[in-house]
Amino acid sequence: MEKTLKELADYLGGDLQGDGSVRISGVAGLDDAQERQISFLANPRYAARVESTAAGALLLPPGAKSYGKNAIYLANPYLGFAKLVTLFYVRPPRVRGVMPGAFVGDRVVMGAAVTVYPGAFVGDGVILGDRVTLFPGVALYEGVEVGSDTVLHANVSIRERCRVGSRVIIHNGSVVGSDGFGYAPESTGHYKIPQVGIVIIEDDVEIGSNTTIDRAALGATIIRRGAKIDNLVQIAHNCVIGAHSIIVSQVGVSGSTKLGEFVTLGGQVGVAGHLEIGDRAMVGAKSGIHNDIPAGQVYSGYPAMPHRQWLKAAMAAPKIPEMRKSIIELEKRLKELEALLPAKKGE
Amino acid sequence: MEKTLKELADYLGGDLQGDGSVRISGVAGLDDAQERQISFLANPRYAARVESTAAGALLLPPGAKSYGKNAIYLANPYLGFAKLVTLFYVRPPRVRGVMPGAFVGDRVVMGAAVTVYPGAFVGDGVILGDRVTLFPGVALYEGVEVGSDTVLHANVSIRERCRVGSRVIIHNGSVVGSDGFGYAPESTGHYKIPQVGIVIIEDDVEIGSNTTIDRAALGATIIRRGAKIDNLVQIAHNCVIGAHSIIVSQVGVSGSTKLGEFVTLGGQVGVAGHLEIGDRAMVGAKSGIHNDIPAGQVYSGYPAMPHRQWLKAAMAAPKIPEMRKSIIELEKRLKELEALLPAKKGE
Amino acid sequence: MEKTLKELADYLGGDLQGDGSVRISGVAGLDDAQERQISFLANPRYAARVESTAAGALLLPPGAKSYGKNAIYLANPYLGFAKLVTLFYVRPPRVRGVMPGAFVGDRVVMGAAVTVYPGAFVGDGVILGDRVTLFPGVALYEGVEVGSDTVLHANVSIRERCRVGSRVIIHNGSVVGSDGFGYAPESTGHYKIPQVGIVIIEDDVEIGSNTTIDRAALGATIIRRGAKIDNLVQIAHNCVIGAHSIIVSQVGVSGSTKLGEFVTLGGQVGVAGHLEIGDRAMVGAKSGIHNDIPAGQVYSGYPAMPHRQWLKAAMAAPKIPEMRKSIIELEKRLKELEALLPAKKGE
Repeated sequence: MEKTLKELADYLGGDLQGDGSVRISGVAGLDDAQERQISFLANPRYAARVESTAAGALLLPPGAKSYGKNAIYLANPYLGFAKLVTLFYVRPPRVRGVMPGAFVGDRVVMGAAVTVYPGAFVGDGVILGDRVTLFPGVALYEGVEVGSDTVLHANVSIRERCRVGSRVIIHNGSVVGSDGFGYAPESTGHYKIPQVGIVIIEDDVEIGSNTTIDRAALGATIIRRGAKIDNLVQIAHNCVIGAHSIIVSQVGVSGSTKLGEFVTLGGQVGVAGHLEIGDRAMVGAKSGIHNDIPAGQVYSGYPAMPHRQWLKAAMAAPKIPEMRKSIIELEKRLKELEALLPAKKGE
Repeated sequence: MEKTLKELADYLGGDLQGDGSVRISGVAGLDDAQERQISFLANPRYAARVESTAAGALLLPPGAKSYGKNAIYLANPYLGFAKLVTLFYVRPPRVRGVMPGAFVGDRVVMGAAVTVYPGAFVGDGVILGDRVTLFPGVALYEGVEVGSDTVLHANVSIRERCRVGSRVIIHNGSVVGSDGFGYAPESTGHYKIPQVGIVIIEDDVEIGSNTTIDRAALGATIIRRGAKIDNLVQIAHNCVIGAHSIIVSQVGVSGSTKLGEFVTLGGQVGVAGHLEIGDRAMVGAKSGIHNDIPAGQVYSGYPAMPHRQWLKAAMAAPKIPEMRKSIIELEKRLKELEALLPAKKGE
Repeated sequence: MEKTLKELADYLGGDLQGDGSVRISGVAGLDDAQERQISFLANPRYAARVESTAAGALLLPPGAKSYGKNAIYLANPYLGFAKLVTLFYVRPPRVRGVMPGAFVGDRVVMGAAVTVYPGAFVGDGVILGDRVTLFPGVALYEGVEVGSDTVLHANVSIRERCRVGSRVIIHNGSVVGSDGFGYAPESTGHYKIPQVGIVIIEDDVEIGSNTTIDRAALGATIIRRGAKIDNLVQIAHNCVIGAHSIIVSQVGVSGSTKLGEFVTLGGQVGVAGHLEIGDRAMVGAKSGIHNDIPAGQVYSGYPAMPHRQWLKAAMAAPKIPEMRKSIIELEKRLKELEALLPAKKGE
């Protein structure tokens, strides 16, 4: 595919500067771009690379120098870049129907133009929307519902009665609706509390690979619209992940915790159970959260504290042994002074 | 299904108070319960909710107020709740036999009333007990043994010669018996130490989704009876997890470490190799364990320390920068005093 | 299989001492070994066990006492042990061809002597080398390439166009080439940045179970030859893992970070994005890395610091509350002295 720079400027709604007839056939980073490719500058830190790039054109933020390059100026060059990558490289999945070797149960409701690969399993009573794609090894248990244009990658499991919205992407090996981890202590061991709730995944959610989202004990674990969850994340039973929240890889969220909208949890964060994390709160990587976080706050550390305080505490941490030495030294010197003074008192 | 409150009291062995003829059709939390449902109070913290619940009956601990509700009094209302959830909502899995599309190898020994879904693979020489359920995508390698009433969910892998007991549940995507992580350093790289042992999972164990349990180098990695392991947990080669231990999500246990009975490891805990964790020891979430823990002790932190000590250290941690300032200030003031005193000495 | 001790000494290139005609049929640890088995002493810490072992022969380091046992002396007994385990217990996988129930797409290029188990899926245009083994539930998306003698265990997914080298082992459930976690913020949510790069896994790499390696946004995520990656590890988009690096379980490496050769990351380590970790650097378990690490350095802690410094800081950490008390006490005593001195000044 090829587009003129003018066509791309119109597509993105940006301001063209330079030769609009230049033909562009792809997108690349500043260092890798070739003459027929367009690149972008989102972070001023990389401005020096603009001078040396071979890219035939650039996406630039308002007010940036163009270094004599053909350019499209737009408010969010990074978003523009993402849209051009989509334009040049992303094709709708090929519709292949229910392929031989796919297993389809009884009372299944199929939308139009679905693709079910060999080795995918569609349980009894499943409802599939239009243009759903199920890759090999996908297992939809009894009564699952999947919305339109959703893609479930190979070896994803959706357990009994769970509901997945439209335009959802779930990457390979992730599990939606396995049993929550709940037991009642008995003298002889642990009595399993049956997990009879479900998981609801709303529209436009994306879930990485090998992530696990447990079904509710009663009721529903809910991933709200537009939330993005990375690989190897654990979401426990009865959690609610707010709309458009971002959960980075290897995070664990314990049972019944509720996240607001646009919350960000950094990689390997752990959140205790029964907490509330407010809208647009952010948590630094590897933090351990034991208390509610108010909306808009930034927390870090284990146990977590306001991010600025943590930065200072983290900076001071390597100094602790030295501080300890100083205290012992101070005690010695103070003692000497004290020994001196009562003597004087007695004068 | 419907039961009278009298029937439920008899079933649980509790003391009925109020109208035993009330008909109950299900179980719910205090806030969600309807008139035909029974709820429970296990934690006195939630006592206020009892007043406003619409539940038709309650499970209450001895001595609790009933607020004028029909009630069953019993020592462990939480356990009673779990038993009623089981009674009302859990049905034995439907027996479906070896379904078309299932793959069964040579010399397989099948118990009675097994269910093997399409896309499940049963390798040569596998032995299955009675009423085993294998969901789609389960892969049992050569020589695996699975006990009666065990359920293996979709995309579980059990590697060559591993043994899984009776009444075991393994959730989706978990892996039993992949190779332990062992290499002998060579000048040119790493020489793989073949992992020729197995994994033994005893009766009544439950394992979450996408958990990994490595086979032993020689001998066996063992998960003892009644242990409960959550999602995304790593158990390395030659570990022994003691009976009825509880291992929360995203824990990692390094090679050859032995856990006693009824040990609890909180979420995201890491345990180094070749350690012993004593019976009924507990480790707080996110802790890092580098030393043995004696039986019955509670540890937290990274590196871990007795829990009470950690609570104090954690509370003090945000104060470190301020402490450092105080020390510098103290040094300055002390120096001033010292400068003053020798002068005095010279008087 | 049986070998004489003389044959084993020749095989390993070690110095035989004692009776070379002794027949050996296997390998075991010092405590478990029987008369016909050979054991080894690699760590002098276990020397005492040599006295009590029933092993018929030993692999010993130069200069070690033999305690009257038949022995093979060699520079690296642990490596010798690994080689004997391979010799006695490891057989090449049985060649079974493309078995019934395997799914093979169009334009697939098959090497000689491949094994494709039932339920494995080989997408259109896939290229397989000689003696490749694909276990059940393996999904190779369109255009994947797999080198000779590579083994992909059950339920592994290799996404579109990714390339896996020769003699690679990938354990069950691991995912190569799922989308990197990249979004451009929009006012209404997050716009997905299509991940159109690939993953390249070079020769002799081993990857554990349920590990996830994301494809690059543009270009390639690369795992260089001989690297060993444990279970449940996350490698984000555009990372480069250097040759012969060792990455222990549950590590997370964020986007675009580059590891040198022979780097070691301990269990549950987290590494931020866009960093460089130098050749032969080592990072202690559970550490959080926010900055580059120079070649050859050993770091630990969160945030990470040089390992020796961390050891001291970790030792001092439990003392923080006590230090705080000391500081308050010092302040009080100093104040008393100060109160005393100005009075004196006024004399």
